[in-house]
Amino acid sequence: MDATKILLTEKEVPTKWYNVQADLPEPLPPLRHPATKEPTILPPPLFSSALNDQEFSKERWIEIPEEVQEIYKLWRPSPLYRAHRLEKALDTPAHIYYKYEGVSPAGSHKLNTAVAQAYYNKKEGIKRLATETGAGQWGSALSLGCQYFGLELKVYMVKVSYEQKPYRRIMMETWGAKCVPSPSPDTQIGRSILEKDPNNTGSLGIAISEAVEDAFGRDDTHYSLGSVLNHVLLHQTVIGLESMKQMEMAGEYPDMIVGCIGGGSNFAGMFLPFVRDKITGKKPKLEIISVEPTACPTVTKGPYTWDFGDVAGMAPIALMYTLGHSFVPPPVHAGGLRYHGMAPLVCHLVKLGFVDARAVNQIATFQAAIQFARSEGIIPAPEPAHALRVAIDEALKCKQAGQKKTILIALSGHGHFDLGAYEKYLSGQLEDYDYPKELVEAALKDLPQVPA
Amino acid sequence: MDATKILLTEKEVPTKWYNVQADLPEPLPPLRHPATKEPTILPPPLFSSALNDQEFSKERWIEIPEEVQEIYKLWRPSPLYRAHRLEKALDTPAHIYYKYEGVSPAGSHKLNTAVAQAYYNKKEGIKRLATETGAGQWGSALSLGCQYFGLELKVYMVKVSYEQKPYRRIMMETWGAKCVPSPSPDTQIGRSILEKDPNNTGSLGIAISEAVEDAFGRDDTHYSLGSVLNHVLLHQTVIGLESMKQMEMAGEYPDMIVGCIGGGSNFAGMFLPFVRDKITGKKPKLEIISVEPTACPTVTKGPYTWDFGDVAGMAPIALMYTLGHSFVPPPVHAGGLRYHGMAPLVCHLVKLGFVDARAVNQIATFQAAIQFARSEGIIPAPEPAHALRVAIDEALKCKQAGQKKTILIALSGHGHFDLGAYEKYLSGQLEDYDYPKELVEAALKDLPQVPA
Repeated sequence: MDATKILLTEKEVPTKWYNVQADLPEPLPPLRHPATKEPTILPPPLFSSALNDQEFSKERWIEIPEEVQEIYKLWRPSPLYRAHRLEKALDTPAHIYYKYEGVSPAGSHKLNTAVAQAYYNKKEGIKRLATETGAGQWGSALSLGCQYFGLELKVYMVKVSYEQKPYRRIMMETWGAKCVPSPSPDTQIGRSILEKDPNNTGSLGIAISEAVEDAFGRDDTHYSLGSVLNHVLLHQTVIGLESMKQMEMAGEYPDMIVGCIGGGSNFAGMFLPFVRDKITGKKPKLEIISVEPTACPTVTKGPYTWDFGDVAGMAPIALMYTLGHSFVPPPVHAGGLRYHGMAPLVCHLVKLGFVDARAVNQIATFQAAIQFARSEGIIPAPEPAHALRVAIDEALKCKQAGQKKTILIALSGHGHFDLGAYEKYLSGQLEDYDYPKELVEAALKDLPQVPA
Repeated sequence: MDATKILLTEKEVPTKWYNVQADLPEPLPPLRHPATKEPTILPPPLFSSALNDQEFSKERWIEIPEEVQEIYKLWRPSPLYRAHRLEKALDTPAHIYYKYEGVSPAGSHKLNTAVAQAYYNKKEGIKRLATETGAGQWGSALSLGCQYFGLELKVYMVKVSYEQKPYRRIMMETWGAKCVPSPSPDTQIGRSILEKDPNNTGSLGIAISEAVEDAFGRDDTHYSLGSVLNHVLLHQTVIGLESMKQMEMAGEYPDMIVGCIGGGSNFAGMFLPFVRDKITGKKPKLEIISVEPTACPTVTKGPYTWDFGDVAGMAPIALMYTLGHSFVPPPVHAGGLRYHGMAPLVCHLVKLGFVDARAVNQIATFQAAIQFARSEGIIPAPEPAHALRVAIDEALKCKQAGQKKTILIALSGHGHFDLGAYEKYLSGQLEDYDYPKELVEAALKDLPQVPA
């Protein structure tokens, strides 16, 4: 039998990130300033200059600092699995592979960029970072990233999650970060919200505003973002670079790559090194399928237009697929996919026809997650379970058509802190959420006007 | 810098388990029947004949079935880490290595034997297993083991854990097992307890009795135990066999091996292949240190005598260190170390002078866990954190003495489902529990009388 795990040695941890901006047939439109609407860089009081440089760089390969490589070796290269047991369960001629980022101590791909961001900030003399987190995936990854480099971290965590999901908060504290429920009395914006409404349960928009205010107010502090921006996607390309080598070791090239998209960084990290082969015409038939929830169908239903990156309208404006920055998606359990917009780089590649998108509903997603867990063992997070749904459907199509396809899945993390959602599924209490058309239409009335 | 991870390829998954009974200078005293007190095998209505054969085998090497090897490849060989960052944090000349079993989908070493037990039972025509679980570590591992081989599983879970720790139960259900709170209305013994006391919160003793009754009552069902017995320790020797190869790749041989002991299977799995070198005189100075909680100091404080394996007095009687089968240890968070007895094989090797034991208290254990998590990233389970405490103390002694020692730690699992205990530590609410002398003295009055 072919190998189950395709492993690289730690000497094969990538030494360079791949920057797709070097290979785009049309350049990415620059960000716009939220107030002036003029093209803008990342605000220097918030971001290190190295990260800003990476944001706009056109260099194809960007050196990974040795200190970051050394940390990567704690869990990288991550394994690529051949899903023999899932293939057998599906009785499919398809070859299914999955790249598993759940082996990182923080449990997901997020640590790939957390470590890099902590490093560059430390190097530029910054002592402290501030960030926001929803369910806590990003906050916990950045806590560990900061701990590795001796940076302080303050995490503003959406209050409803802070109270309902204590485990991610405890992880942050275990790794030495300070985590407060947002809105908090620690910022002006937090105080003003609490004055009006002491029981406000918070939102990602409020938490972003608090973290940004925190970082603006202190010279020793920068802000940090866990997805969407180009430099974040860049750091995640270690996933795809390793996968390319591993697929080569397996003697195959994927016909199809599947991953979930929320802000876009996990799946972009996987597909960017491969999309280059599509752009250059080397692999014109490669299918790249991004998967989102029907509850938050940014790319499948949203217009391609200018919108704020955040709910509060303080972040830069980007040209992207969006459901409107004031759109609040239904409460699907894949919290990491509940974002109104999408990484501009991912959107650009969709617009140019290199990347496709599909939306799947919640119950079918958990059915796929359970089938995967029962055949392969790993309990996936609800986010990458969206990719599993599409991959399984494609493998079943292969069975019907008697066709052998090679499918590569980006399995971004484990579901150890999502078992409450599994319980709901298993007890028949999980809900589906179809496209919330009216909510989206209302939110789309509120887009910023950007001069051409 | 030397490597961070020492990895084997899946072709190097062990093909044989090591059976230390072939190399014991004095044979292990056989088990005694709980009623007749005569030497006994494992009761055939409860155990497969292959497992019983392994229990008493004197063959040095026992073939691992290919089907089991294939499953092992889903996570084995597990990584051996050099703890560079912990060494640096301690500023010690010691070289610290840890073998990490938390990479298994069930999160601990338990899956090594779960898979083997499911395989042998399936092969002998058994359709269904029954077992008990406390906090759920063993129940979840066996759920996945049974799922891999298409066996049904019923888990009797101590009711107080069933209610307080739902995550492990949901894992079991995710992997297809049926889990009920014990005492349950599904067995005679459960019903009789519930009749007298409908609010009984259960105990491991009751749960064992229910699982045994379940298996006794059905021809298609066997019972399964997750630690203590020789065949369980045998299956765990993959840990030590891989570690030996990996240490060889690192160009070192340990001066000291440290692991936690509850039932003994995790640490025995690590040290048995090494203890052979000590028995044969090849490595006479090798130190093997088993670590237990001061709250349940079986080997450091208990007498070496005959006692029942279970609280109810239904299981075979073994010659072992014991605190008395009716002893109920204080509620330390390391639930897996709250066992009154100890694997007879481990005890035998302690008695013969090949293995040492130490006890550590709870707060110091969590201090070590936090220090480990902040340097290496991985959040350890409270059980192996006991081993980390001793390893860190030894590394600090090396610093004081200016001595280089090579320390190998058995890191049996992650602490993703133990974050409640971390929170208590971080908020200063964790308690220490010293040796509960009076409780032990009372329990020791209740030992069975066994003729010589």
